[in-house]
Amino acid sequence: MDVDEKYFSNITSRERAIFEGAISMGALFHQFVGTPVNKSSKKSLETSMEESLKLQPAIEDVDVKIRFDKLEESMSDFDYTSLTGDMLDVKIYTKVKDVQATIRIEFIEELNYPLMYVEDIN
Amino acid sequence: MDVDEKYFSNITSRERAIFEGAISMGALFHQFVGTPVNKSSKKSLETSMEESLKLQPAIEDVDVKIRFDKLEESMSDFDYTSLTGDMLDVKIYTKVKDVQATIRIEFIEELNYPLMYVEDIN
Amino acid sequence: MDVDEKYFSNITSRERAIFEGAISMGALFHQFVGTPVNKSSKKSLETSMEESLKLQPAIEDVDVKIRFDKLEESMSDFDYTSLTGDMLDVKIYTKVKDVQATIRIEFIEELNYPLMYVEDIN
Amino acid sequence: MDVDEKYFSNITSRERAIFEGAISMGALFHQFVGTPVNKSSKKSLETSMEESLKLQPAIEDVDVKIRFDKLEESMSDFDYTSLTGDMLDVKIYTKVKDVQATIRIEFIEELNYPLMYVEDIN
Repeated sequence: MDVDEKYFSNITSRERAIFEGAISMGALFHQFVGTPVNKSSKKSLETSMEESLKLQPAIEDVDVKIRFDKLEESMSDFDYTSLTGDMLDVKIYTKVKDVQATIRIEFIEELNYPLMYVEDIN
Repeated sequence: MDVDEKYFSNITSRERAIFEGAISMGALFHQFVGTPVNKSSKKSLETSMEESLKLQPAIEDVDVKIRFDKLEESMSDFDYTSLTGDMLDVKIYTKVKDVQATIRIEFIEELNYPLMYVEDIN
Repeated sequence: MDVDEKYFSNITSRERAIFEGAISMGALFHQFVGTPVNKSSKKSLETSMEESLKLQPAIEDVDVKIRFDKLEESMSDFDYTSLTGDMLDVKIYTKVKDVQATIRIEFIEELNYPLMYVEDIN
Repeated sequence: MDVDEKYFSNITSRERAIFEGAISMGALFHQFVGTPVNKSSKKSLETSMEESLKLQPAIEDVDVKIRFDKLEESMSDFDYTSLTGDMLDVKIYTKVKDVQATIRIEFIEELNYPLMYVEDIN
């Protein structure tokens, strides 16, 4: 089966670059929020988030930063906390034919909301 | 702050209708896959998936069907199983200005994959 | 196969009542934290959490309260937020033979931590 | 506050070793099931599961094996799949005072169920 022809011929390459990046950003947030994390496990969690999301269709690269300041803010007496959306600073890079897009999540204080948006698209 | 102007002026309404629906579909999958489910709890899980995802930006409606055939196939000796992607048949309806889109997930046997795609867009 | 004899003969009924309740409490937290929620969807989310966890072995009943005060505290400009551990006030009731246990999670301000403990056991 | 005295004086060290291990096993399953995974990302996912769960109270060590045979069985046309319970072979080692326990999850074909049980306790 030609998946692209059967299921994606109704949208442009640019639209699909946005579509696939948005799926993966929604996936990343809702898969990993809640994970126990502290300073010592931060790096392995970032790596695992990057490597797992990179497997999805059209994803070229994923760059995850767990914000240390937000991590510290929510620290418990047990020396770890749960990953929350405000800690996430992530870029997902997609490529569909000649279109490259960067989907971003970052916490916007003014909105009290981890906003996902298209940071860059050519 | 005008969020739309600041963060979304680089994409069209059509692109944003796709973007927001895709985020919510990725979210739905990765939030709820793994949930214990059987015939008796299926309805309340569907309702909760619909009501929670409907809260996200630009989502007009969400229609979740947990496939009973797939649910039965994976049933354990303990009379329940865990929600998996192949059980999901979901439509997410988005609206951004005058554009309406339907984002769909359905399990495609030939690909052994729960495919997300843009089913309809005007 | 006699599951109880093969896998659980090394622990007492009391220990198993604790074991099964603790599994389900860990499951509940990590399955549902991150779910979009607001005042209007709170009830259906509570119901779905209760009905899905009640399916697990030895679980007699589950009583989920999403704390409205904590929900409001973390509200975003988009009129919803993500479920976090500090919103959870949950009791899981287990029964193994003649032993009944209540496993509880509640947020302890002093610890900045959603503590799980055995609230009651006979 | 003396957490142990306030919240855990009603159970023995043995019971608490079981309790804490069971919480973390339920947590591990429901946090990570659904994560995209294939042969290339398997190792980083195992590491991240181990490091994050090791942060929880009373957890001495965590040993995660994602079963390659089950992973291959469910492979999609897109060269990855979603982590499911039947792929999990995990041991969580807990210690409370002089008691050590090993909590295990492994998939039992005969039950079609990823069973959690106390594998060892002294």
